[in-house]
Amino acid sequence: MRHVLSMKNLSTEDIIRILDRAAEFESGAKPNLKETYTVSNLFFEPSTRTKMSFEMAERKLNLHVLPFEAATSSTVKGETLIDTVKTLEAIGVDALVIRHEAEEYYNELLNGVGISVINGGDGAGQHPSQSMLDLYTIRQEFGRFEGLTITIAGDIAHSRVARSNADALKMLGANVHYLSPLEWKGEFETVSSWEEILPSSDVVMLLRVQHERHGNDGSFSKEEYHEKYGLTLKREKMMKKDAIIMHPAPINRGVEIADELVECDRSRIFKQMHNGVFVRMAILETVLKGREK
Amino acid sequence: MRHVLSMKNLSTEDIIRILDRAAEFESGAKPNLKETYTVSNLFFEPSTRTKMSFEMAERKLNLHVLPFEAATSSTVKGETLIDTVKTLEAIGVDALVIRHEAEEYYNELLNGVGISVINGGDGAGQHPSQSMLDLYTIRQEFGRFEGLTITIAGDIAHSRVARSNADALKMLGANVHYLSPLEWKGEFETVSSWEEILPSSDVVMLLRVQHERHGNDGSFSKEEYHEKYGLTLKREKMMKKDAIIMHPAPINRGVEIADELVECDRSRIFKQMHNGVFVRMAILETVLKGREK
Amino acid sequence: MRHVLSMKNLSTEDIIRILDRAAEFESGAKPNLKETYTVSNLFFEPSTRTKMSFEMAERKLNLHVLPFEAATSSTVKGETLIDTVKTLEAIGVDALVIRHEAEEYYNELLNGVGISVINGGDGAGQHPSQSMLDLYTIRQEFGRFEGLTITIAGDIAHSRVARSNADALKMLGANVHYLSPLEWKGEFETVSSWEEILPSSDVVMLLRVQHERHGNDGSFSKEEYHEKYGLTLKREKMMKKDAIIMHPAPINRGVEIADELVECDRSRIFKQMHNGVFVRMAILETVLKGREK
Repeated sequence: MRHVLSMKNLSTEDIIRILDRAAEFESGAKPNLKETYTVSNLFFEPSTRTKMSFEMAERKLNLHVLPFEAATSSTVKGETLIDTVKTLEAIGVDALVIRHEAEEYYNELLNGVGISVINGGDGAGQHPSQSMLDLYTIRQEFGRFEGLTITIAGDIAHSRVARSNADALKMLGANVHYLSPLEWKGEFETVSSWEEILPSSDVVMLLRVQHERHGNDGSFSKEEYHEKYGLTLKREKMMKKDAIIMHPAPINRGVEIADELVECDRSRIFKQMHNGVFVRMAILETVLKGREK
Repeated sequence: MRHVLSMKNLSTEDIIRILDRAAEFESGAKPNLKETYTVSNLFFEPSTRTKMSFEMAERKLNLHVLPFEAATSSTVKGETLIDTVKTLEAIGVDALVIRHEAEEYYNELLNGVGISVINGGDGAGQHPSQSMLDLYTIRQEFGRFEGLTITIAGDIAHSRVARSNADALKMLGANVHYLSPLEWKGEFETVSSWEEILPSSDVVMLLRVQHERHGNDGSFSKEEYHEKYGLTLKREKMMKKDAIIMHPAPINRGVEIADELVECDRSRIFKQMHNGVFVRMAILETVLKGREK
Repeated sequence: MRHVLSMKNLSTEDIIRILDRAAEFESGAKPNLKETYTVSNLFFEPSTRTKMSFEMAERKLNLHVLPFEAATSSTVKGETLIDTVKTLEAIGVDALVIRHEAEEYYNELLNGVGISVINGGDGAGQHPSQSMLDLYTIRQEFGRFEGLTITIAGDIAHSRVARSNADALKMLGANVHYLSPLEWKGEFETVSSWEEILPSSDVVMLLRVQHERHGNDGSFSKEEYHEKYGLTLKREKMMKKDAIIMHPAPINRGVEIADELVECDRSRIFKQMHNGVFVRMAILETVLKGREK
């Protein structure tokens, strides 16, 4: 595997192999790389969780990490992404983690570029490392994907997390349902209400309302959103005994989810972040080992 | 000691122990930590000295340092400080150095957060690592605190350095005096003029006029400030034979202090910065060792 | 050698020694330094290539690298460059790579500062590490400088690359010619047309049109510039059999050079970037070894 760009490119076998390796890292396995590779994290959109999680994974793998700040790079002099990437390849960087606002930005990078690319999020496209950590967290909880009922709720149309997870979870045998305001349902078929789906869901995966992508479309206030589409205190009581709550974060407390539920017993939100480091170690190691042959 | 937040929380014994350990580091002692811990420096306000000094200390302690830039973090998507801190804890960060404009920002972080916090400056509150390096520099010079006369001059009301030092120096037995324009004296009792206090001061500690906090209150021009409250060439001649000049920097040359005095024989300004690295090594090591039990 | 500020300060012997050491690094030589030195890269102007190349070189030399971001440093509180540099010296930094918009900014740093300075570009002044990598690339290609015909084309007046290379190449025995719009020729004597010089040139060194330095002087559109002063597809056919194309990048594709030529057989543009890491390792090692005596 030379790149990790989209969950669509990964086979069930690829996914399971990465999850298994992540579990080994969680149990204290040492990295298995022949050289001290060099990587850089090119984040053209704001991030705390994904960037810091990759930074941590990179240090645990003993990689060299070259700092890159989009705002002070030559991109402000008009340099294209492809020329920036080729520059880093020429300098000797082995792999890049890239987050970029352009959907499928990576397509233009694959011809004639020898550097490996790990997609850290492309516009409203894909977010494979987030998806992998979601899968890891679900498998950790239930030991399987087959037959689970998973409800993804919120701004599905704009969510690369929803898109990545939908592809992967269905491939792995889960039943995936969506709940969303009409305006944000995109290409997905949605259920009509929480009441319809909540009692049978094993996993409730909430998405962040992305205020910065919507502008002010004024369709609902925060309170209205919470009331209609959020996981309220009342709704949580309808959940199955062992069902869990997930959210990729950052969280809008009191919008997608009641403030009190963020750290309740069912919540795996901080567990997801914790798992992310092991999953990203596995992704980075897999991609870098792919260069050793 | 799990956190270092304010000089008010530290006993005389705590302070002396940190100063002693800093002295060992200055003499070449190696760090004494069982693991490779991971830290991150969250600076929500500009800094060169404090941030770079912590960065240096962290490298001398062989820590992993995860880069954090407030401007490109999820705080720009509205994430709260507590959620950012919990995220970093979930990712596996052991300790944070935080500078934030909100006074006592750290209070909200202490409940249910397992990560250690070192306060790198909170609004007009406290700046304990600066205070510790000031104490280190004074002890290095005089071998004691008891009975020393220390004059802190300038914008005392807005200064976290003044506040941290006042608490600690009095506890350690020094006589602390303040000189300040009426507008900036805050809760402190001030002396009426340099002439009253300078001939008996062992330490003259100047504070930076914080143009960025005052706006344009127009009470004095730079020249007027220098004339009335600055350490002029003429005033320096009134100082005791072995008295020293200190300043936390950055310096407004020709405002708080005559340009020619910044590097004069009495000045310990760059010595303070030099000492800061050892003091911060001691603080970080103390906090991280506190996690080993 | 305590500093590397300008090609003018370097003797032929200095240059050859650095090029030879860079060649050793390219062949896999290990760094030869007695201590783990600490450096920091102070870039007050945007950069990808130069900054990332130094960052890579620093890691290959196993140095500690303290991150510095001008935008969040105390320079925004009005701290002068000299005070920032003295601060970093006090903290224990051994060497700085500085890029700054002020021409010869380094002059004010040399008195009473013990830290070593490597100039990463000063306004329209000098850019010695770029020049060294250009020399390395030329020597790698031709095995000599003596008697080569080198044409530097573009915005010569504003180019620190042109200035650094002109000084060095002439000292090393090359014949250097310039081609430029009248408005941008500065102190240089230029040839009248590509046709006059291209058939005899061994090296064609193109410079970036620095839109950000010119503002809108409106003298030519991109298409006009390309037609009159750019390396067009047609002109490339006039070049000597073994002649090469160089460019310091970032590139304005279709302005200085036809898009199709950027990666053609004659182009050494990405090779230059590749070589830059070895040259910067040699420069850093030379400067740091100069501190060991």
